[in-house]
Amino acid sequence: MAGTDRSRDSGAVAEGDGPAIVLVGPQLGDNVGAAARAMLNCGLTDLRLVRPRDGWPNPRAWAMASGADSVLARTRTFATPAAAIADLHHVFATTARRRDMVKLTVTPSEAATEIRRRAARGERCGVLFGPERIGLTNDEVALADAVLTFPLNPAFRSLNLAQAVLLIAWEWYRAEDRAPSRVVVVPSDQRQATREELLALFDHLERELDGHGFFKVAELRPTLVRNLRNVLHRAQLTDREVRTLHGVITSLAERRKGGS
Amino acid sequence: MAGTDRSRDSGAVAEGDGPAIVLVGPQLGDNVGAAARAMLNCGLTDLRLVRPRDGWPNPRAWAMASGADSVLARTRTFATPAAAIADLHHVFATTARRRDMVKLTVTPSEAATEIRRRAARGERCGVLFGPERIGLTNDEVALADAVLTFPLNPAFRSLNLAQAVLLIAWEWYRAEDRAPSRVVVVPSDQRQATREELLALFDHLERELDGHGFFKVAELRPTLVRNLRNVLHRAQLTDREVRTLHGVITSLAERRKGGS
Repeated sequence: MAGTDRSRDSGAVAEGDGPAIVLVGPQLGDNVGAAARAMLNCGLTDLRLVRPRDGWPNPRAWAMASGADSVLARTRTFATPAAAIADLHHVFATTARRRDMVKLTVTPSEAATEIRRRAARGERCGVLFGPERIGLTNDEVALADAVLTFPLNPAFRSLNLAQAVLLIAWEWYRAEDRAPSRVVVVPSDQRQATREELLALFDHLERELDGHGFFKVAELRPTLVRNLRNVLHRAQLTDREVRTLHGVITSLAERRKGGS
Repeated sequence: MAGTDRSRDSGAVAEGDGPAIVLVGPQLGDNVGAAARAMLNCGLTDLRLVRPRDGWPNPRAWAMASGADSVLARTRTFATPAAAIADLHHVFATTARRRDMVKLTVTPSEAATEIRRRAARGERCGVLFGPERIGLTNDEVALADAVLTFPLNPAFRSLNLAQAVLLIAWEWYRAEDRAPSRVVVVPSDQRQATREELLALFDHLERELDGHGFFKVAELRPTLVRNLRNVLHRAQLTDREVRTLHGVITSLAERRKGGS
């Protein structure tokens, strides 16, 4: 339901660069499908399942994937977590609970940076997720190089499986995103107004205001003019909008003449 | 299913600081519940619904909220988007499609920063989300100060409603998060080893290796010692692990004696 403009895309997603998403013992096909959708939203395609409770392939996954069929079609199943991560160079284990282990613990954004860094030198990473509600066992966590935790509301940390996958995928995707954080999007049939067009608009407005006696106190005119110009500058008008505003000014001015 | 350790929490969430989440015409109670869960994960509590299709309250929402009942209990319904945002100072409209409008467009992280900045001076913000699949109408988008788009995979931008809410909530939450991005979490009954403890371990290891003739080429001994010490340094050992490794060295050394 949400997305971006083509002008703001960060470019094509390089196949194989992103982390493998490894769901250990997922219970609901719905969650596998929702995870696949979230992955593809962020350009991830390598989904691996270890002993999915309801078997594989699972029609509920396809129903929930909303078109991310390409991810589900290439999803592989494994008998053990060790088999699922055998070809990977660096593995993160997501956990909600604190474990009685001495383990490097990273945030999703730090993991994303690390995954990008390792991919740049040809290493592939993976992220392990445990079953809904239960999470990974300590033995499964011990398979990983580092623990990945989500800094969340301490009073309510229970994150849905697909939501957890989305946050990892999102952090990975945005780590390379070069979209400007603020931009005024202008439809293709319009363009930013030039200074000349803006100044002509200011002139038109101020001329009409002079004619209508708007500037009652002469000493205040410079300040009022500056303020009005600032408002119009801040609006970052397009060429079409400048023309529209000329029309507005003319129209208002004419109405007064007709009505007086 | 994922979370963080208490030591990494960013502190209590100040009630009322976060943006209001306004779902315009949501179709499925499930999505309202999933959105509430995602909100509370990130400390947001102000959920507003405009004409939810299946009525309100909706039992499906409670089923999907997995305990985020406090958010659902205070969720308010409104007849129009304008009524839902009447008390807010600044409003973002999430859109997937490019609209034929000249509008400031921001990323989720930029919106999050802006929301924090405005909250610091007492202004409340809100984020509008349209119905699943359809999105906001142009008139609804025009109610907002800025458009919020998600930089996502251009080939697959369709984001689930609750997933879109999560990304906004997550970006808002993390904008103030002070959790260290990398930390070795040590159980409370252990502590980082001191330099003295480490040096004693090195001594023990190197003494035994000397005794076993490990350093066959004398000139290589300094390099080998350095490499071994680097490995043990990198492991960032705790006091307990140092004791364990002393035991390992002693045990290995004894076995050789017994067997020879």
